[in-house]
Amino acid sequence: MTTESFPGIATIPFQGPGAESPLAFRHYDPDRVVLGRRMEDQLRFAVCYWHGFAWGGADTFGDGTFQRPWLAPGDPMVRARQRTDAVLELLTKLGVQYFTFHDRDLAPEGETLRESSARLAAMADHLGAGMQRTGKKLLWGTANLFGHPRYAAGAATSPDPAVFACAAAQVRQALEVTHTLGGENYVLWGGREGYDTLLNTDLRRELDQLGRFLSLVVDHKHRIGFRGTLLIEPKPMEPTKHQYDFDAATVHAFLRRYGLERELKLNLEVNHATLAGHSFAHEVTYAIANDLFGSVDANRGDPQLGWDTDQFPADLEDMTLALHAILEAGGIGRGGFNFDAKLRRQSIDDEDLFLAHIGGMDTLALALLRAAALIEQRTLTDARTSRYADWEGPLGRSILAGEADLASLADRALDENLSPRPRSGKQELLENRLGRVLYG
Amino acid sequence: MTTESFPGIATIPFQGPGAESPLAFRHYDPDRVVLGRRMEDQLRFAVCYWHGFAWGGADTFGDGTFQRPWLAPGDPMVRARQRTDAVLELLTKLGVQYFTFHDRDLAPEGETLRESSARLAAMADHLGAGMQRTGKKLLWGTANLFGHPRYAAGAATSPDPAVFACAAAQVRQALEVTHTLGGENYVLWGGREGYDTLLNTDLRRELDQLGRFLSLVVDHKHRIGFRGTLLIEPKPMEPTKHQYDFDAATVHAFLRRYGLERELKLNLEVNHATLAGHSFAHEVTYAIANDLFGSVDANRGDPQLGWDTDQFPADLEDMTLALHAILEAGGIGRGGFNFDAKLRRQSIDDEDLFLAHIGGMDTLALALLRAAALIEQRTLTDARTSRYADWEGPLGRSILAGEADLASLADRALDENLSPRPRSGKQELLENRLGRVLYG
Amino acid sequence: MTTESFPGIATIPFQGPGAESPLAFRHYDPDRVVLGRRMEDQLRFAVCYWHGFAWGGADTFGDGTFQRPWLAPGDPMVRARQRTDAVLELLTKLGVQYFTFHDRDLAPEGETLRESSARLAAMADHLGAGMQRTGKKLLWGTANLFGHPRYAAGAATSPDPAVFACAAAQVRQALEVTHTLGGENYVLWGGREGYDTLLNTDLRRELDQLGRFLSLVVDHKHRIGFRGTLLIEPKPMEPTKHQYDFDAATVHAFLRRYGLERELKLNLEVNHATLAGHSFAHEVTYAIANDLFGSVDANRGDPQLGWDTDQFPADLEDMTLALHAILEAGGIGRGGFNFDAKLRRQSIDDEDLFLAHIGGMDTLALALLRAAALIEQRTLTDARTSRYADWEGPLGRSILAGEADLASLADRALDENLSPRPRSGKQELLENRLGRVLYG
Amino acid sequence: MTTESFPGIATIPFQGPGAESPLAFRHYDPDRVVLGRRMEDQLRFAVCYWHGFAWGGADTFGDGTFQRPWLAPGDPMVRARQRTDAVLELLTKLGVQYFTFHDRDLAPEGETLRESSARLAAMADHLGAGMQRTGKKLLWGTANLFGHPRYAAGAATSPDPAVFACAAAQVRQALEVTHTLGGENYVLWGGREGYDTLLNTDLRRELDQLGRFLSLVVDHKHRIGFRGTLLIEPKPMEPTKHQYDFDAATVHAFLRRYGLERELKLNLEVNHATLAGHSFAHEVTYAIANDLFGSVDANRGDPQLGWDTDQFPADLEDMTLALHAILEAGGIGRGGFNFDAKLRRQSIDDEDLFLAHIGGMDTLALALLRAAALIEQRTLTDARTSRYADWEGPLGRSILAGEADLASLADRALDENLSPRPRSGKQELLENRLGRVLYG
Repeated sequence: MTTESFPGIATIPFQGPGAESPLAFRHYDPDRVVLGRRMEDQLRFAVCYWHGFAWGGADTFGDGTFQRPWLAPGDPMVRARQRTDAVLELLTKLGVQYFTFHDRDLAPEGETLRESSARLAAMADHLGAGMQRTGKKLLWGTANLFGHPRYAAGAATSPDPAVFACAAAQVRQALEVTHTLGGENYVLWGGREGYDTLLNTDLRRELDQLGRFLSLVVDHKHRIGFRGTLLIEPKPMEPTKHQYDFDAATVHAFLRRYGLERELKLNLEVNHATLAGHSFAHEVTYAIANDLFGSVDANRGDPQLGWDTDQFPADLEDMTLALHAILEAGGIGRGGFNFDAKLRRQSIDDEDLFLAHIGGMDTLALALLRAAALIEQRTLTDARTSRYADWEGPLGRSILAGEADLASLADRALDENLSPRPRSGKQELLENRLGRVLYG
Repeated sequence: MTTESFPGIATIPFQGPGAESPLAFRHYDPDRVVLGRRMEDQLRFAVCYWHGFAWGGADTFGDGTFQRPWLAPGDPMVRARQRTDAVLELLTKLGVQYFTFHDRDLAPEGETLRESSARLAAMADHLGAGMQRTGKKLLWGTANLFGHPRYAAGAATSPDPAVFACAAAQVRQALEVTHTLGGENYVLWGGREGYDTLLNTDLRRELDQLGRFLSLVVDHKHRIGFRGTLLIEPKPMEPTKHQYDFDAATVHAFLRRYGLERELKLNLEVNHATLAGHSFAHEVTYAIANDLFGSVDANRGDPQLGWDTDQFPADLEDMTLALHAILEAGGIGRGGFNFDAKLRRQSIDDEDLFLAHIGGMDTLALALLRAAALIEQRTLTDARTSRYADWEGPLGRSILAGEADLASLADRALDENLSPRPRSGKQELLENRLGRVLYG
Repeated sequence: MTTESFPGIATIPFQGPGAESPLAFRHYDPDRVVLGRRMEDQLRFAVCYWHGFAWGGADTFGDGTFQRPWLAPGDPMVRARQRTDAVLELLTKLGVQYFTFHDRDLAPEGETLRESSARLAAMADHLGAGMQRTGKKLLWGTANLFGHPRYAAGAATSPDPAVFACAAAQVRQALEVTHTLGGENYVLWGGREGYDTLLNTDLRRELDQLGRFLSLVVDHKHRIGFRGTLLIEPKPMEPTKHQYDFDAATVHAFLRRYGLERELKLNLEVNHATLAGHSFAHEVTYAIANDLFGSVDANRGDPQLGWDTDQFPADLEDMTLALHAILEAGGIGRGGFNFDAKLRRQSIDDEDLFLAHIGGMDTLALALLRAAALIEQRTLTDARTSRYADWEGPLGRSILAGEADLASLADRALDENLSPRPRSGKQELLENRLGRVLYG
Repeated sequence: MTTESFPGIATIPFQGPGAESPLAFRHYDPDRVVLGRRMEDQLRFAVCYWHGFAWGGADTFGDGTFQRPWLAPGDPMVRARQRTDAVLELLTKLGVQYFTFHDRDLAPEGETLRESSARLAAMADHLGAGMQRTGKKLLWGTANLFGHPRYAAGAATSPDPAVFACAAAQVRQALEVTHTLGGENYVLWGGREGYDTLLNTDLRRELDQLGRFLSLVVDHKHRIGFRGTLLIEPKPMEPTKHQYDFDAATVHAFLRRYGLERELKLNLEVNHATLAGHSFAHEVTYAIANDLFGSVDANRGDPQLGWDTDQFPADLEDMTLALHAILEAGGIGRGGFNFDAKLRRQSIDDEDLFLAHIGGMDTLALALLRAAALIEQRTLTDARTSRYADWEGPLGRSILAGEADLASLADRALDENLSPRPRSGKQELLENRLGRVLYG
């Protein structure tokens, strides 16, 4: 039997908006039905291994600050088992059903590929047993193709095809482990697929390499019968100067270029959206409009900072607008809201790890309630429908149906001397209505 | 016969690097052969109507500062003819062969569509005669679909299909005028095709409208036998919060989504690249790698400012790297380097308009020489070839040829216990070599 | 008697959070007492002339969109009176007590300084009568030293001392008009006091000029017995590349350098803070910590855009944190919350102008309630007090009292081999607590 | 005797612009006299310990990539001596006279303050002997008050005064070691003096703590007779969300507030300037205009990235403009150009470390030549003098001398109906002239 990792923390209860304890949910009530589904099923929360359990609090300027048993010196496989046990305990106490991992979070890198592979196989067994015991589930797995020095110049886009082969080995196993553990998706994040300088880079060649790599992964997925979704995660910068998966639109172009647009969907991260110069709602809406929406990494950035701060979600408006778009499109599906979020480096108490997740979960739960209210009240829907109503009229329909050509439309405009009356976009009205729903 | 618009300015001569006069070229020597072509043919400079001749120097905070005869009060058609004559005089004195215009720069907006159309037809005649007289040529025309209040919510993406029809009328005529005047390209810049707020916006619908509009333009182009290239110009923001043609990759995705990727190419602007979070060399390289490169708007932004400052090019490194990529890909083709650039608001002397263009032309001419040196010395080419050499070996070729699947690559990596030796990316070496060519 | 400017809009009532009508306040209840003062007195709202009444909706890319009687062609002084009447009507219908103006918003620029001055004097009389009639008050006046071409290179910092003299004439009169009308403050916004390029700029000289100018204004204020506060408004960019009043800290340095730190305070704008790379709460907190806080321009920017979008406030968290800091420091004093905010260009309905102000006022009213709750519950106060408690102990006090020197502190640390126990910063806990108050 | 650290690299010779070898200087010719001083004396280059010798190539996303003997596992004091020997060898081979260090670069942190202190003392001896042997000199020392977990919440601004005392111990010793080693300056970089969130922060209190700390350092400096300059290094963000030493102006305000403006000067970093939203030339010019200029960290950032990339200088224009300002103000004085710059993570060859410094030194050497040409040709000086010439006339002088008050100036403007003629700022002309000097 395992020792408790967080002995001072009990199961986090739902206590409603008036809850006094910081270690209680005020909004997240898993069984509450919202728009016809249980809150838990609408949100499908996941906790990640890496930020909360593999990162020790070091940053570019200083050493780690977190004192966790599984981060202490010692046999790395012992520590790895402790880590997995701690993750499952946190999930159980939080009432979160899903988790996510990189291969290297689950099992430590060995001296050789082979040793790494054996370690991962062993840890997959340990994790599988833990999942059985606790009932916890894998939202997605992924492979760390960026930490080891061999990947300094990229994995699939490395100038060295032997590195490509190493990446293939990692992804094959990570995908198979994900499949074995019943993972519902598999994520490909670009890692170091990008460039530090164009001076030494053959962009077209590297994109071709990346296209080939993804095609191989798609083929392998089908071969092994994995029915989960392959997800690709856009990010504009960090660690390279320019990541090839810059944003949703860039990945969209890439997928279509390589004929993969039906095989992969997007795992959208809030912080990555803002780094790319977009609102998160934009990225979600764009992905949905192009049939590419897959899942969400819910961590936010700091509006004044130019790097991934990976903070737990706290902005009700951002999350509500994203959820509104997702719910209108049918919901999160087999994706989920993954907390790819880390504690601030000063937040060293065990309790802080729970508080952070509680805050994130409550933010999203409240956002779900607010988004549901927007949908039920048709706050935005009706305004949009009426704004575009003329496109359902004869002129609009004939244009979209391709019945009119440029010349006939032009003739009509000139013959009728069209002078369309400007109409207000009612932006302030809609902002006020949104505020009313958001802030009661 | 026309009165001179710039009586104090003579034809600008090439005087070489030692030129003392500010009104002389130091690097731009049109007949000098660089990489097998005359400099003039490599660069294909164009001057735009709007910034230099239609803008009076007003900004958000203050009134116009430029005193130009064609900006004075009076009969707008008289002023329009003066403007065109001034453009042609500037071209002649600068030795620039090409110009670019919006319909509304060439001829003023009338009270009605019909009046506007008639005015444009009249001015096209006046311009045609001027072109005949001076030998000047049209690099591209375009339609202003953003200035009139009817376009406040977009043109093709307006919620009002009557606005779409008005836009069709403008583009039909602008395209036909461009064709008649022997224009070598036709540009579609997104104008207000974007959104101010997602709250009132149906993104999918608006993208469909835009896709339809472009398809109509493509069809019309073929119908009238226009052989020039249709160009679309990416821009991330301004005037809307989010422009649909955000950057090269976003337009790439859009074109592929609507099956237009063989019909349109990109007109890339330096300032728009940096506003989108990219280096200009990135946008050029991306476009080339995806067979989308068309033409260039050579105006730069300010690295500390978040809007289009549209300054004349002065950054040798940026321009050299872009030209290097363009030359490696075969040159500017039927595109050109258009100065979509404006004077600073304080630069009110007639002379300043010439100095600005001279500076821009000299910057690009020198960049051309530097880029040619990089190519002739194979400064970057050899480094790249050798960096990726292993992809020409058996493993690399088998991967790219699709002969290996994920499992066989993974097996090979594990069986051979691959541990690829890290290699330096030699970034600093290449930066030094670049500096050597740039700065002698 | 004047014709109504907004005949379709009645006085805006407070109807509480459940209000159905968009033309009602949900939170702004002027007589409600919050932390011992009426809401109206805590917030001291002001409406500005310029964005709402002098701007016609034109932007860099297109013409005006607003159809207002006072913007129509015609006798400028007739239009000016209409404008003032419209402002007072809006104030009355909104229940706002204060307004703000530039000299050139109130009275149109004439052909000469003298004519401009005479027009301003006439309009001051008209406005004074209107104030008498309506009971409305002037929060602050200011002079427009940036719109006229003479100010293209700055006013006080112009390379031409005659421009400095013109600016003196405008400010003298604007200050005196403000005094006459009972204005409670007078604002100096930098306008074009900055540079477009360092190449032509003598920074030290221009700062000296600006220091001199402000000293003259301070002297004149005392001479005429104006008891209001002089306010300086930081802004980092726009219209110049680099404004001298970049942010609160930059102005602080400037004021101390020229010995003016007791004579001027800061008018802080939300949008200007974010353009300078700061949160608004930072600017407010910095100003308070340095005894420089004066007043607020409550308009926000867009987190993805790099220019002044001047939107009406809608972000509850930002406003709550700023108000928390202001209330802790004793309240807004003789400052106020001025809506230096403009409608979106598409928002052309008369109603939109009211909706925008209602939304802004409700946002601030709710933020006031939330900030008051934070203060009453000591949500942040207690956490801070306890975090710094050791600075009230013997070591902390001796350090701050200057009783210990570096060597004695160092000796003590070494002798005692100090190894202070790290403590959590509890950021996530505080964010959760804040969320609880913000979102109920 | 020590083993060579870089056995494959010989002393780097000056070979002039035509040099073929990458391991030669093309522009840096130490004895060449520029504006009356040897190039070496004008530039006073320094190499830093930390980036080149203490950092192993790890970033947030992956492990170290550099294989250096002194980074290998083993006795930390042995490694520390190897590191120092390697630094001195690099300096010798590069012909650089100065270096810079943090206490913790020179000697590794011990288990306790006392052990750390003893190690530093030992390493100071080792270094002193090496300096004697090689003739190398210390440009400045500093203390690392950010790496150890105890400083997670700041050093002087920590909520725990015991942390303040530990910081005092470190700074006392680092300052004394600097003094002993003949250091010419001592730097205080803010480290973690800033906040991660305002929610838990008492800004005024923390600024008071920081003011006290600096005062203690100033007193100690005088007490021990250190004649070097104390330098404070502005930075806006990283590692904290908001660093108190945001930019030159913020530090200026701080110094004046605490009466320290005559005791400290600024160490300006190129990358920090751009992160703060300024051009580097701006920060230099501002510092000079306010008598605060001290020294330079010459590493640049990436214009598209929002964090410190710390790249070696390669931008000729930026460096030339900064040097122009510095030379006009009398030169670098007892400051220097320190390469606070790091290799790209892929640049793993020993050679790369030399190439990077060579490139940086050549960039600055060429910038020096260009700046000297600008000064000798009075390219900018004359333009500025003539632009402001009227301020040397009677009106200008009377204003600056304080002889005119606001009313008399206003009267004069009105009485004379002043209407100053706008003048061109000649920005494009100056840009062209600059380009001519920069690019030949």
